Amino acid sequence: MDRRSFLKTSALGGGAAAATSLAAPALAQGKVTLTMVTTWPRGLAGVWDSVERFANNVTAMSDGSLTIEAKAAGELVGAFESFDAVTSGQADIYHGADYYFVGQHPAFAYFTAVPFGMTAPEIMTWYYAGDGMKLHHELGEIFGLKSFLAGQTAAQGGGWFRKPVNSPDDFKGLKFRMPGLGGQVMAKLGASVQVLPGGEIYQALSTGALDATEWIGPWSDEKLGLQEVCDNYYPAGFHEPGAALSVACNLDVFNGLSPAHQKIIEIAAAEDHQANYALFISNNGPALQRLKNGGTQIHAFADSIWDAFGAASKEVLDGFMDDELFAKIRASAEASMSSTAGWVSVSDATYAAQRSRVMG
Amino acid sequence: MDRRSFLKTSALGGGAAAATSLAAPALAQGKVTLTMVTTWPRGLAGVWDSVERFANNVTAMSDGSLTIEAKAAGELVGAFESFDAVTSGQADIYHGADYYFVGQHPAFAYFTAVPFGMTAPEIMTWYYAGDGMKLHHELGEIFGLKSFLAGQTAAQGGGWFRKPVNSPDDFKGLKFRMPGLGGQVMAKLGASVQVLPGGEIYQALSTGALDATEWIGPWSDEKLGLQEVCDNYYPAGFHEPGAALSVACNLDVFNGLSPAHQKIIEIAAAEDHQANYALFISNNGPALQRLKNGGTQIHAFADSIWDAFGAASKEVLDGFMDDELFAKIRASAEASMSSTAGWVSVSDATYAAQRSRVMG
Repeated sequence: MDRRSFLKTSALGGGAAAATSLAAPALAQGKVTLTMVTTWPRGLAGVWDSVERFANNVTAMSDGSLTIEAKAAGELVGAFESFDAVTSGQADIYHGADYYFVGQHPAFAYFTAVPFGMTAPEIMTWYYAGDGMKLHHELGEIFGLKSFLAGQTAAQGGGWFRKPVNSPDDFKGLKFRMPGLGGQVMAKLGASVQVLPGGEIYQALSTGALDATEWIGPWSDEKLGLQEVCDNYYPAGFHEPGAALSVACNLDVFNGLSPAHQKIIEIAAAEDHQANYALFISNNGPALQRLKNGGTQIHAFADSIWDAFGAASKEVLDGFMDDELFAKIRASAEASMSSTAGWVSVSDATYAAQRSRVMG
Repeated sequence: MDRRSFLKTSALGGGAAAATSLAAPALAQGKVTLTMVTTWPRGLAGVWDSVERFANNVTAMSDGSLTIEAKAAGELVGAFESFDAVTSGQADIYHGADYYFVGQHPAFAYFTAVPFGMTAPEIMTWYYAGDGMKLHHELGEIFGLKSFLAGQTAAQGGGWFRKPVNSPDDFKGLKFRMPGLGGQVMAKLGASVQVLPGGEIYQALSTGALDATEWIGPWSDEKLGLQEVCDNYYPAGFHEPGAALSVACNLDVFNGLSPAHQKIIEIAAAEDHQANYALFISNNGPALQRLKNGGTQIHAFADSIWDAFGAASKEVLDGFMDDELFAKIRASAEASMSSTAGWVSVSDATYAAQRSRVMG
């Protein structure tokens, strides 16, 4: 595929569509309402909390002059049609996980998670104090979007398996649900990778259409009922060490907002990133304990499996390096990750080890 | 001291003073200006960035209808007079580190840092998804304050020493600058503890009035010039594994604001916590490298010193347990820290170890 000409066409298409959508936000007595599509089932633990928090804070801070009308997946468009709905002007803004849109551009993965990538604190550092946000804007603007991180699931679990996996060979032919670049890594291991939205996972596992899945973490996974259809859970995974969620506004719609409304969207999104991270972390510990109590078997992948994940992850990331923007974003993210480690390894890591040794 | 009657008196005093300050915020053409005092020298790297970010975002989100006029330490009142200035209504809001005010109530330490306490991600979890914020409000309201975390230095360094320390005995008689409960731990080790604001540390070290100090981390410490007056730096410390900064508004002033302005203060403060954390982390790695290049000797405390820190920290924290609110806040913080660890130890920690093993 000639990605560059594809991107140019998309950009033109997005721009043209966006131009017709300038009147899209509903206006009544000076109040602006933005129609938000999302990639989530309504009310789903954690991710829908992020949607609601963002929307409520925007309304409250703007004294009701800017409101967000949030639609669950399927209410206006399907989960994975959210991107096109916003670039075309059918909706004004989406809330979702940008790695669902690696088909539009592989670098979107960096604004959710990449294999062996950054933890949530490392993402914060890169995004809010490094070049992360600037690069997110640069990428989004190609498609006529103004993008901001908004929501963060923290480290995601390695996944649920109907049978335990003991070596890289066990992934061959495994019908595994995993989106983003992690899914492409699984394909290199021989898995039959599927990308289903959250609302369809339970049924696929119970009918045998899937053998295994990752979703988010113990709290959200428990709410989906995955423990009812899989006995084996691997808490640690390679694919989403910190998974950010995003809001992306149609660029022309965003540019038509007042500077105060633009800033309210930016700050509400960033606050949502931190608050949602806290929410997931705070709920995952108790949920993991409940799963254990309910009979779920807890496993860790063997080193040989981690090695296979590592080799395949390098291949997948290297495979996109002919794309200039992907290469720029990857270099920026990896440099930030490495620089962060220079301090954290001698401060936080030493502290954590001593706290554990001294205080038990 | 009868702390409870002290607190009641303070609360009455604060309330009475606050009542007279209802007209304190400057009002012109429907615009509100809040006078902010701070515990920081103007422009000081990291902490002043937090002040400016908060103030700028409040102004931008409110379209200029709410502005913050920030005063550095000494411009209106001295650094450590900020608390009384706001409770008395002389100023409307402060930005500072709440552990400077452990004399007012020892539980304020939990809203900056306590010895062997939470890292920044653990603080986020407790404060934004657990009871942290609610307890901060409960504590602040005793004094007529509405308090929010705003700013976060990340893990603070163990400190700068004119001579290396090799055993707990080396702290005996050491003239050491350390505020908060950490300073009380140092006193138990026999140090002569002093609590100077940031703007006075350099001179005290260069004249020999101090033998050692902690300040923040490599980036901020380098800006103070501490490497010019001390050769020995210990990156990891026990006393501030994650140090939050706060804004606290006079409660009556806060209650007089519109709901939109109140929400703007809350969300701008929370966003500042994350952004400031990112700023410190992102700058500390390169600063540590520059310090090394400039000849600073990098050390780690011996296990025997960490053990002494641990024993003294327990004593200091236990010493406040007759105060009901301190005990409630400590129990809440420690339960959250422990629950967080239940998930993080099997997810993030396993991931970090495998990333390091597999990817180098």
